[in-house]
Amino acid sequence: MEKKIKSTAPCDERCPVRASLSLLAGKWTLMILFQINENTVRYGELKRTVTGISEKMLIQELNMLVENKLVIKKVYHQVPPKVEYTLTELGLKTLPIVDQLAQFGLENLV
Amino acid sequence: MEKKIKSTAPCDERCPVRASLSLLAGKWTLMILFQINENTVRYGELKRTVTGISEKMLIQELNMLVENKLVIKKVYHQVPPKVEYTLTELGLKTLPIVDQLAQFGLENLV
Repeated sequence: MEKKIKSTAPCDERCPVRASLSLLAGKWTLMILFQINENTVRYGELKRTVTGISEKMLIQELNMLVENKLVIKKVYHQVPPKVEYTLTELGLKTLPIVDQLAQFGLENLV
Repeated sequence: MEKKIKSTAPCDERCPVRASLSLLAGKWTLMILFQINENTVRYGELKRTVTGISEKMLIQELNMLVENKLVIKKVYHQVPPKVEYTLTELGLKTLPIVDQLAQFGLENLV
């Protein structure tokens, strides 16, 4: 009996899906990118619209997104202080992923 | 001076992006769906191709995917035992998300 050899390539360090997930996996990351979207969004606005996230987690996620060059943080040194977030060019390129997540959720889950 | 009111809808329980992420977020979930893809894949094959995942985590993820009706598990009671995984109709609908992740990774990361 001939045995069929499966030839699926492993998803290792060079796998683009793994590379993307190393930046984007997590409960909140894509939700934050979705909420910033094509807008400039203040910190307080994010805190309000990403419902359920703790202050600590939101700050941690935003710092990570800035570090990974997906988001730009702009601080206005004024009273009261103002902090705004915008997607970088790279961050904007994650929106098609978010769109697919939205479509999947809309058609199958909510 | 008029103040512009932002009207971004909050991403709460009815938000399709949140609903999708509640099933699909996590370091491994979408990677496993990607590796099963349109094929029928044996457990050992998944263990080999989802590189870096621990046995415990792979089993946990697969059970979760079966529970969430994204994956079908088929057990052949033979010696040696054979266990195969296939995407359900719902699971197949996550592949466009995976495709976008792959495209983003390919164009920007690897």
